Amino acid sequence: MQANDTFVEAGAAGTAAGRGDAPVGQVAWQRSGVTRADRERKNGHSGRVLWFTGLPGAGKSTLAFALERELHDRGIACLVLDGDNVRHGLCRDLGFSEADRRENLRRVGEVSKLFVEAGTVVLAALVSPSGEDRRMVRALFDAGDFAEVYVRCSLEECERRDPKGLYKKARSGLIPSFTGIGAPYDVPERPELTIDTQLAPAGESVAALIAYLERRGDLLGSTAESGQF
Amino acid sequence: MQANDTFVEAGAAGTAAGRGDAPVGQVAWQRSGVTRADRERKNGHSGRVLWFTGLPGAGKSTLAFALERELHDRGIACLVLDGDNVRHGLCRDLGFSEADRRENLRRVGEVSKLFVEAGTVVLAALVSPSGEDRRMVRALFDAGDFAEVYVRCSLEECERRDPKGLYKKARSGLIPSFTGIGAPYDVPERPELTIDTQLAPAGESVAALIAYLERRGDLLGSTAESGQF
Repeated sequence: MQANDTFVEAGAAGTAAGRGDAPVGQVAWQRSGVTRADRERKNGHSGRVLWFTGLPGAGKSTLAFALERELHDRGIACLVLDGDNVRHGLCRDLGFSEADRRENLRRVGEVSKLFVEAGTVVLAALVSPSGEDRRMVRALFDAGDFAEVYVRCSLEECERRDPKGLYKKARSGLIPSFTGIGAPYDVPERPELTIDTQLAPAGESVAALIAYLERRGDLLGSTAESGQF
Repeated sequence: MQANDTFVEAGAAGTAAGRGDAPVGQVAWQRSGVTRADRERKNGHSGRVLWFTGLPGAGKSTLAFALERELHDRGIACLVLDGDNVRHGLCRDLGFSEADRRENLRRVGEVSKLFVEAGTVVLAALVSPSGEDRRMVRALFDAGDFAEVYVRCSLEECERRDPKGLYKKARSGLIPSFTGIGAPYDVPERPELTIDTQLAPAGESVAALIAYLERRGDLLGSTAESGQF
């Protein structure tokens, strides 16, 4: 935003101030001034991030995509940022060292922030095993904008599911620092919400997430203003 | 998206296929299936990126923010990604070496892509001096999704404006690789649109950008479906 503030100063300095149609850069233009509140009003709901953390195979992406479907059908602007996906794009230069995992989270956090500023409900689904790294991401946001969702599932059950065959590879030594096997997972101490995918049926889990968002008032106005419901 | 496809396979393998309410990860859930087309239909217009390139001080951010204001007022989901801003967040680890500038552009390109997928009109305003780097960014997108906007202004005029005092610093040797002084700017060879901020009044420039988007049909449906016009 500084660039525009500076143009304002340039104009105020007198070269072309006051002319209504002067060339760009000489005139006292304000920056666009489209605020987050403007965007949220347009969208009819708040921008927020739900950060799904849990062991590989716990069901983070599945839950996030199911919630995305439900939110979209309710007219909510929402988006899943999935660990696997961003590693094919924004974070394709990063590996799985501790430093790279932290940088991966930082970038997804910063992107989430941009989407929240745009009035979007972001569903970020990443293993994010380090409590310290998760605190770093949380610190990027204002208090009410970020919620940690612990997707709980026992290691035994995750390994039994092994949806990508990665636990098997990890056990055979092919993935040395696989979370849960060769690398630790810090169980969240005070997550805003815990979803147990061994105990709760999938439909109930999504309903619990919706109820949580509604309880916080995050979805308010969406039905009233979208004009579609 | 692969994570969910995998869960589908896990379900299809028979552990819990067919049960309507089985625990997440065992059941043949589809991924959410909210497509870009769904989001564009909801928003009432296409996702696109306009990539504003030009010398420092040419008026890229000013134009982008003015266009953002106009688009927002028309009910278009839009967002400025400004070079200065991203360097305080997503790209705060990057400097101004050739490699870092390329990585800066790559990341903004990837983020733009996520926003385009979300059905947003992205207005990216970055000096982006290297033609090769701009081609790299362009290659991230499908042909119709990306348009280069050359914000043309003579070096002399940019230096005269010097909105941030950076040309002065560059001339005194404080910024060795400043674009236009100590580092080259590759003039776009085939930009989709050229805006000359020395010749065209600001209001005309925004109108030209709107006309361009309308000519391409990018804004179609926005007034019809937003329910606000």
